[in-house]
Amino acid sequence: MRFGVNYTPSQGWFHSWLDFDVAAVARDLDAIAGLGVDHIRIFPLWHLVQPNRTLIRPSALDDVACVLDLAAEVGLEVNVDGLQGHLSSYDFMPSWLESWHRKNMFTHPLAVSGEVEYLRALTRAVADRPNLLGITLGNEVNQFAGGVHPTPHTITPEEAGSWLGTLDAAVRTETNTLVTHAMYDASWYRDDQPFLPEHAADYGDSTVVHSWVFNGSAQLDGPLAPASVRHAQYLLALAAAWNRDAERPVWLQEVGAPINVVPVADVPEFISRTVRHAMESPKLWGITWWCSHDVSRSLADFPPLEYDLGLIDSDGNVKPSGRAFAELIKELRDAGPAPAPEAALELDDSVDGYRAQCAPGGAFHRAWMAAAEHTAPGQAPQIVLRSRRGDQELLAARGISDNKITQVLSEEAPYA
Amino acid sequence: MRFGVNYTPSQGWFHSWLDFDVAAVARDLDAIAGLGVDHIRIFPLWHLVQPNRTLIRPSALDDVACVLDLAAEVGLEVNVDGLQGHLSSYDFMPSWLESWHRKNMFTHPLAVSGEVEYLRALTRAVADRPNLLGITLGNEVNQFAGGVHPTPHTITPEEAGSWLGTLDAAVRTETNTLVTHAMYDASWYRDDQPFLPEHAADYGDSTVVHSWVFNGSAQLDGPLAPASVRHAQYLLALAAAWNRDAERPVWLQEVGAPINVVPVADVPEFISRTVRHAMESPKLWGITWWCSHDVSRSLADFPPLEYDLGLIDSDGNVKPSGRAFAELIKELRDAGPAPAPEAALELDDSVDGYRAQCAPGGAFHRAWMAAAEHTAPGQAPQIVLRSRRGDQELLAARGISDNKITQVLSEEAPYA
Repeated sequence: MRFGVNYTPSQGWFHSWLDFDVAAVARDLDAIAGLGVDHIRIFPLWHLVQPNRTLIRPSALDDVACVLDLAAEVGLEVNVDGLQGHLSSYDFMPSWLESWHRKNMFTHPLAVSGEVEYLRALTRAVADRPNLLGITLGNEVNQFAGGVHPTPHTITPEEAGSWLGTLDAAVRTETNTLVTHAMYDASWYRDDQPFLPEHAADYGDSTVVHSWVFNGSAQLDGPLAPASVRHAQYLLALAAAWNRDAERPVWLQEVGAPINVVPVADVPEFISRTVRHAMESPKLWGITWWCSHDVSRSLADFPPLEYDLGLIDSDGNVKPSGRAFAELIKELRDAGPAPAPEAALELDDSVDGYRAQCAPGGAFHRAWMAAAEHTAPGQAPQIVLRSRRGDQELLAARGISDNKITQVLSEEAPYA
Repeated sequence: MRFGVNYTPSQGWFHSWLDFDVAAVARDLDAIAGLGVDHIRIFPLWHLVQPNRTLIRPSALDDVACVLDLAAEVGLEVNVDGLQGHLSSYDFMPSWLESWHRKNMFTHPLAVSGEVEYLRALTRAVADRPNLLGITLGNEVNQFAGGVHPTPHTITPEEAGSWLGTLDAAVRTETNTLVTHAMYDASWYRDDQPFLPEHAADYGDSTVVHSWVFNGSAQLDGPLAPASVRHAQYLLALAAAWNRDAERPVWLQEVGAPINVVPVADVPEFISRTVRHAMESPKLWGITWWCSHDVSRSLADFPPLEYDLGLIDSDGNVKPSGRAFAELIKELRDAGPAPAPEAALELDDSVDGYRAQCAPGGAFHRAWMAAAEHTAPGQAPQIVLRSRRGDQELLAARGISDNKITQVLSEEAPYA
């Protein structure tokens, strides 16, 4: 079982790429390694690395590679995310895609070719590092495509898939490492999101989920209720339902304890229950906590919750949350793979609005949470798609018994 | 008479702030000094200096100050522009004002207070340099306010004035240097532009104009016709019409030879005629050519004309345009102030749409060009506002004879 953290630099947050400070990064990584994690996920800022479509700054790529080398010194593997893009409420779009140069980032040929060149260059810069864990195309890039974004790059699901295929292939021209892509949970929960659950499962080498209980989960029943502490597990179960290969890993690549919905005093318990439940998931590759370091209060305008997500404060002191995570790692890092429960709930993915049914408070979500709570530990149901119900080979490979599949009736989702 | 150039770094354009290279800047400034100019205008990128509202990077300020020191070594004064903002078709807006953090940059209290802090910090960083020429609030910031911008920060003229007053005062808390603000010509020519001609004249220490003949001027009659080579002079005359103090200087802070409308072979002649005509303007402080260096063809997506505006190519060779400008400087730098012609045209600024009348092809523009061509050299008419026609003291101070003022009748402007 792999444990890691998303690395949020203690000095200057991700703006620290502008003042790359080897000693500061080394100090941060040393503190992170002290938690017992085996990997980090890092986030170059796209608009700084590629300020013009045809200018990919060698010195910026050198800085990224340097982080890998510093991480290697303290025994950490590194996953590099490409298109940031979006981080903690801030969007960083290069000027060659905005305003007078506005182009659809997913479909315009010059935009896509620029992204291809960027991801190839970024991958090349780190491909020879032995501690390269993988490349993620970008952090929650689906945020830019959805209807909730203030200025969305509107696309169809077919265009989303085509874009993922193009960028995934671009990275693979440069490396044999793990390639993934990351979506925020609108892809699972919002019917207007063009990036679909099947895109999570059909592109990349593992199916990645990001679990954030400020999405309504914690508000439903409270910070330590099943809807909160099983949310990551539920999302992993949903993700696995779309995997065409039963052996395909799932990765809880982001999960955090947002204190707008989880009181600080409950955070260690929230972490413990969240991690333990997540580990009940079959084929789980690992858990990567968001995040390493608090955002300094000297930086303005973040949503309040974003300041306190760190396991380590901005002065470098491990917080109670960090101690809780570290203790869990010590206890759980040698755990074997979770068994595959025979029972499953069937999701009717054929109906319009099925994603709203999956969202926190939706009929399917409610049904799964109830079923999970009424089974023995480790026996929370898997999820089967109605559209794939006939694939007996897949069901068998997943360890699901046909006579233990329960249909869930669609109904109006209260939180749709 | 002051001559200068707008400094466009030969390596990496303004993205070079990301890889600040003292030797490269020194090489550029040496080449610029070789033209015989006495000053440059420089453009820090706002989003890089202030990536978070409360993070103004000391190292970025140091780089700006370093440019002044390098300029001092070759005898150049430096004007520092603040809010870029907009440069050569690219917008660089900090992420704390865009997307999820979108705020009206002219009216939102947090936006304005962030801008105040930025301009104060930028000014403080250079205030003690003996070769500091001045501070301009930002380059053509009115671009963001106008109706033609794809995502305008919509404001009223009153709000534009209030914003200018706030920012002007902020800079003055840190320095006694020249303070100016710069608008593109929509303020003179478009009736939907909230930044008004009077704002050019009522804020800052001199009235600044930017002359670009791709605005229709050159298209009207050709690259060497009066509408082209007198455009800067005309804009200076318009600017002076709004000055409440006859002694207030006017500054041709940007003027260039865009090869989409001025054939390369005509550029030296265009420069010569443009400069000579501009120098007929009473109270002209100086002429700052756009720009020092060509944009490298290795950078993508600029409008084609933007690549060739340099007086020096991106390899450091002085172009025919550079030689022409250098020869003019040698000839004209000791020229005395231009006489104030007694004749003037009266602009009826009381009618709706008077700005369209002033635009290239508009009735007033046509009338002024015709009058300028039919007078002796140095005798092109001044411009008087109907709203200030009664200010005999001002007219006298400007050297205008009441009996030599000609009214221009409004009419439908063909290019409105």
